[in-house]
Amino acid sequence: MSNLQNGIKTDSVRLSEDGGAVIIIDQTELPNRTVYLELKTAEQVYEAIQKLRVRGAPAIGICAGYGMYVTAQALDLSSYGNFYSAFKQKKDYINSSRPTAVNLSHALERMERIVKENDGLSPVEILPLLKEEAENIHKEDIEMCKAISEYGLTLVKDGDGILTHCNAGPLATSRYGTGLGTLFLGKERGYEFKVWCDETRPLLQGARLTAYELFNAGIDVTLICDNMASTVMKQGKINAVFVGCDRVAANGDTANKIGTSGAAVLAKHYGIPFYVFCPSSTIDFTCETGEDIKIELRSPDEIKTMFFSEPSSPEGVKCYNPSFDVTDGELITAIVTEKGICRPPFRESLYKMFRKEE
Amino acid sequence: MSNLQNGIKTDSVRLSEDGGAVIIIDQTELPNRTVYLELKTAEQVYEAIQKLRVRGAPAIGICAGYGMYVTAQALDLSSYGNFYSAFKQKKDYINSSRPTAVNLSHALERMERIVKENDGLSPVEILPLLKEEAENIHKEDIEMCKAISEYGLTLVKDGDGILTHCNAGPLATSRYGTGLGTLFLGKERGYEFKVWCDETRPLLQGARLTAYELFNAGIDVTLICDNMASTVMKQGKINAVFVGCDRVAANGDTANKIGTSGAAVLAKHYGIPFYVFCPSSTIDFTCETGEDIKIELRSPDEIKTMFFSEPSSPEGVKCYNPSFDVTDGELITAIVTEKGICRPPFRESLYKMFRKEE
Repeated sequence: MSNLQNGIKTDSVRLSEDGGAVIIIDQTELPNRTVYLELKTAEQVYEAIQKLRVRGAPAIGICAGYGMYVTAQALDLSSYGNFYSAFKQKKDYINSSRPTAVNLSHALERMERIVKENDGLSPVEILPLLKEEAENIHKEDIEMCKAISEYGLTLVKDGDGILTHCNAGPLATSRYGTGLGTLFLGKERGYEFKVWCDETRPLLQGARLTAYELFNAGIDVTLICDNMASTVMKQGKINAVFVGCDRVAANGDTANKIGTSGAAVLAKHYGIPFYVFCPSSTIDFTCETGEDIKIELRSPDEIKTMFFSEPSSPEGVKCYNPSFDVTDGELITAIVTEKGICRPPFRESLYKMFRKEE
Repeated sequence: MSNLQNGIKTDSVRLSEDGGAVIIIDQTELPNRTVYLELKTAEQVYEAIQKLRVRGAPAIGICAGYGMYVTAQALDLSSYGNFYSAFKQKKDYINSSRPTAVNLSHALERMERIVKENDGLSPVEILPLLKEEAENIHKEDIEMCKAISEYGLTLVKDGDGILTHCNAGPLATSRYGTGLGTLFLGKERGYEFKVWCDETRPLLQGARLTAYELFNAGIDVTLICDNMASTVMKQGKINAVFVGCDRVAANGDTANKIGTSGAAVLAKHYGIPFYVFCPSSTIDFTCETGEDIKIELRSPDEIKTMFFSEPSSPEGVKCYNPSFDVTDGELITAIVTEKGICRPPFRESLYKMFRKEE
């Protein structure tokens, strides 16, 4: 499965030819080194997810799916009972690597269901079904990203200036990506976007990953610091803001990488449309509003020392480091999913598009 | 001249005892090393300003004043004509080190005026007058900062949460500072502010200098990334935003460190007052609006490599690195000067307070 979108020869997460390993790009080494890792055990899969070597909710799900298939081959295949019991144990273990990522548990549940639903088969007969399910998770993600990107393309025109925050591209998903998918699909169709890429402090996903993906795909990209977004908007360089997201509440309030809500306030002030891109699985109707979304707080080291050649600030100075923020639904122009585009009021549009089906 | 406000024993810019050098704290080495530099030539003064070893509009003005005095001593003192011609050349050279801050050219004009107005004196007789003028620039700055800080204290109350951007403290001025002066003066008077300090990418003046100054003064300070300001404002933690500035146009449009305009848009959205602190010399009536203020563009290296242990983004990726932005006067609650507080509409209030006198 060739992936030219991110300038890398293969998908950022895939199964090896012989099916014995999950091959991932180590995202912690980008952009300075493109390192591929072969994950052959549950322990290696756990470590890769936990250390953010593979990151982006969809990519984590794909990695977990293939990871369970690879792991299953080394289990006791002599009886269904032994096999299922060991399988379940490995699944729970991998699930604990990043408990908050919804795609991780979702993919693992799908893999377990294959084993559970085939209790009339021998473990050796179940293995190819597990491989197929993992490949389905992967394929569905590609299709989902493609569909989101098609809807995205209806929102912009050739030559538009697009501001992005954080990374929601091929590395975080498969192929096109969510927030960036429209840009890669547009590139294939001859659109010339001018992309402005927030570096995204503190972990620099914009500088390290988004700039890397867009630059390698030959898309016109200019890196800026997060605090420069106001100036490029004011100068009329931005026609739309594109972001991915981690969770959408029933009223459209959206949790995404810290800084997203600020970009949305600026966009509103300057009269620029603000678009959120996500698979429908990201919409969480159990959260009434953004207040119900728990925000992860991370280490001060990410602000003060990580990436720097020496500390940026005096030892002992307090830091506040929320990993995400919540953008009020009222600041969002549209939420773009694989099933269509929802517009305000989101409580009605999201319900109408997704709840009716349940 | 002891300066306890920033935890450093002397003013950040001063004349050496023998008058032969400008002594500055090298701000690029903070907070990890406190290094003093002796600037003895126009070239050294230029380099120190251009490389931001001395930064902050008022501090640059003080440095330029002393720098011209130090430079003048080494010129041809045999005739007034030769002296003035060489003086003018050095002045123009130092003036070209940074374009945006008005204090630099203002201080240099004052120094040149001394030479011009004393064409009946010999260069040797002019030298002490130049020293006196440079000292006046310095002294006036200290008095200005104190007066600005007194006005600032009338705008806040004990316990307030204050967001700051960049650095407008003692290092950028003399003693109290402009944007931070209120916090230091308040501390002396027993106010307990809770300060939230933007790290201020790309050059991290907030993390390196503001956090350093406030922390050493025992003021409650919490460091955040620039893109976290929206979240702390939304949480109700901020009662006012305090910034310094580099140039104010006749209509109140204000040039300050990149990111200031974004903070102002956020403050307006969240209903938080946004205060600009500056000496009246920063108000430039020759600029009708912010459009007339020249914005300095700086090297991509500041975004991509400086401070980092390895590059943050792929080689070849374009960067846009404006050092300042312009905050629309309509986003500013008040401009606080040493002569009083101006409120919108600024075209009238600034004119009334400052133009009447001319």
